[in-house]
Amino acid sequence: MRATVSRKAHFNAAHRLYRKDWSMDKNELIFGKCNNPNFHGHNYELIVSVTGEIDKETGFVIDVKILADLIKEHIEEAFDHKNLNVDVEEFQDLNPTAENIAVVIWNKLRPLISSDKELEVVLYETPRNFVTYKGE
Amino acid sequence: MRATVSRKAHFNAAHRLYRKDWSMDKNELIFGKCNNPNFHGHNYELIVSVTGEIDKETGFVIDVKILADLIKEHIEEAFDHKNLNVDVEEFQDLNPTAENIAVVIWNKLRPLISSDKELEVVLYETPRNFVTYKGE
Amino acid sequence: MRATVSRKAHFNAAHRLYRKDWSMDKNELIFGKCNNPNFHGHNYELIVSVTGEIDKETGFVIDVKILADLIKEHIEEAFDHKNLNVDVEEFQDLNPTAENIAVVIWNKLRPLISSDKELEVVLYETPRNFVTYKGE
Amino acid sequence: MRATVSRKAHFNAAHRLYRKDWSMDKNELIFGKCNNPNFHGHNYELIVSVTGEIDKETGFVIDVKILADLIKEHIEEAFDHKNLNVDVEEFQDLNPTAENIAVVIWNKLRPLISSDKELEVVLYETPRNFVTYKGE
Amino acid sequence: MRATVSRKAHFNAAHRLYRKDWSMDKNELIFGKCNNPNFHGHNYELIVSVTGEIDKETGFVIDVKILADLIKEHIEEAFDHKNLNVDVEEFQDLNPTAENIAVVIWNKLRPLISSDKELEVVLYETPRNFVTYKGE
Amino acid sequence: MRATVSRKAHFNAAHRLYRKDWSMDKNELIFGKCNNPNFHGHNYELIVSVTGEIDKETGFVIDVKILADLIKEHIEEAFDHKNLNVDVEEFQDLNPTAENIAVVIWNKLRPLISSDKELEVVLYETPRNFVTYKGE
Repeated sequence: MRATVSRKAHFNAAHRLYRKDWSMDKNELIFGKCNNPNFHGHNYELIVSVTGEIDKETGFVIDVKILADLIKEHIEEAFDHKNLNVDVEEFQDLNPTAENIAVVIWNKLRPLISSDKELEVVLYETPRNFVTYKGE
Repeated sequence: MRATVSRKAHFNAAHRLYRKDWSMDKNELIFGKCNNPNFHGHNYELIVSVTGEIDKETGFVIDVKILADLIKEHIEEAFDHKNLNVDVEEFQDLNPTAENIAVVIWNKLRPLISSDKELEVVLYETPRNFVTYKGE
Repeated sequence: MRATVSRKAHFNAAHRLYRKDWSMDKNELIFGKCNNPNFHGHNYELIVSVTGEIDKETGFVIDVKILADLIKEHIEEAFDHKNLNVDVEEFQDLNPTAENIAVVIWNKLRPLISSDKELEVVLYETPRNFVTYKGE
Repeated sequence: MRATVSRKAHFNAAHRLYRKDWSMDKNELIFGKCNNPNFHGHNYELIVSVTGEIDKETGFVIDVKILADLIKEHIEEAFDHKNLNVDVEEFQDLNPTAENIAVVIWNKLRPLISSDKELEVVLYETPRNFVTYKGE
Repeated sequence: MRATVSRKAHFNAAHRLYRKDWSMDKNELIFGKCNNPNFHGHNYELIVSVTGEIDKETGFVIDVKILADLIKEHIEEAFDHKNLNVDVEEFQDLNPTAENIAVVIWNKLRPLISSDKELEVVLYETPRNFVTYKGE
Repeated sequence: MRATVSRKAHFNAAHRLYRKDWSMDKNELIFGKCNNPNFHGHNYELIVSVTGEIDKETGFVIDVKILADLIKEHIEEAFDHKNLNVDVEEFQDLNPTAENIAVVIWNKLRPLISSDKELEVVLYETPRNFVTYKGE
């Protein structure tokens, strides 16, 4: 029997949509007010889902306490109260769109979850805008 | 890398579940209080999701501002503060169940999203009742 | 010791903002798209709060089951799946703005709650618009 | 045309994570504070989703009123205000993890939904922890 | 300038509404299914609000981090994953209704907040039932 | 008859808790990770409430459309996608704590609401931290 276990977490961060290799005009045209050079920010809400067999002994796919701790150590501590563009290594040359942040989170968590389990990341940039990434 | 971008929107509308070609008794039997001839209404919440490749240049699957504008122009302006049965062409001969409203929304948006991307519509009729349609 | 007990409920209804004694032009000017003659609708969310002494025996200000039943019998059954303007007696000559609906709900519940207790009604017309009435 | 109809419901219950065939030490090690012998509890939120063809006559995949009544009769009445470990037959020898509760709910509902339709259960143990089971 | 700072927290607990000095029949009559001798449970959501002058230096009424830590140490650690009736001293002879739990929380926090500030506790027993206590 | 009309709005902004006239060590000690020199950010949720007489003609305390437009023009356009410390005049010499942001919003809106009406501002910095200011 396969089930999915999901855990919500959150972090607050500043960011700016911007490519160093584009002119300011092009950044402005494509990213609009999200390109404010002084940054803006969000309360990011994160849902991490792990799919696999339910262990017959424990009744767990994964102990949600362990999953919560992994998210806390590897994602929340790395991103919370940070400026994604300035403070976070992965975004030095990667535009921190919601899509790219979700991919970075997935890539950070994937090696930490046993390989017989599937991983999905949903990232809410605002309550009305969110993205989903499954490593496809 | 493929991801899904989702956008929430909302519209407030009146409707009635009812088939012109059925007797009032049959409408009453099948649709119950949803068949009130004087209509009732809902705050519909809508989630539109677009799945496709993340563009390497922009970091976007689709610019969520463009997606929000498409939903505003084609769905919110057409349905908001309307009586679905009376004011909206698509429901002149189609019962406005949540399922059928979701199909109509999907059909209106599908030509506006590039064909290499998948489209999904989730429509909340109330916070406790919702439907999902993917064009299958 | 005084405390407040609050109970959430909901009903789905159609309505139209409109005064019979005004011209269509004036209704249009003041009420805009809320004046659609064919009606629109909402999922109204209601919070009823009762403030009074905590009964030493039961530990209740009011048994929330009794409060929930009062709301169900007197408000939900009267308003749910109704057209407020057409089907509900209280709005035959009263414009069903959120303010006026809250007042009507308060007036219906006030005689049913013992007079040593205070009553407050909060009515959400949408998740972003709501009103509060305390009988003042 | 295939769509999914989803219905939210809820029940409040006590439980304890615990295996009779393990020592107290092992239960403590694996289940931590969830193994409190005196129990703790949750407001479980449940989303039941049914996927199938939209009926051309009614515009329904399944009448959501019928789905709500099935959930009420078979799940809410069986689990609400109960101690899952003590009062509910299915958990006499099954650890009531969120995963196992979701499987039990799915197994109870599956025979009640026509076999040409797919069934999915999402169970929120808390607003931050939830599981999904589709009978796979 | 006076403002109110509010902090949300949560704990999961089992409880039973019951008075030792009443017969089982009377407990049953007054408390209904909340009197299940095997307990049931809730995800309690708590909002603690502190009202006072905004400090000119810091711009804080109270540092919300300090408030969060007080709630964590004195309320969450005392109540989370506990059976309120069995494990918590304050409810050995006090019926753990939402009203009484709110009073106990207020009494535990009041000495920890400086006396020139007002304190209010809102406790959600479920998303639809909640109580407010201000020490009046 | 007096009622309160409330409107929710939101803006996304970067900020940093920091006093220019304090040393970096003192800023660090008092404001902790909120003092990140590279900024962090939030999705601020705002509830503006106006209390006054219900106009007998319109059934409105204030037309919520007018209230929404005032918030959009004077608050959302001034703060959304901005760095509060850098881009917003009011915070050049005022620490942008939630308390101070609420006071600034109240001061900006107060002259725009007729003086016979009361005004209250609730500002959510995160879903778990919020402040209330009424001009007292």
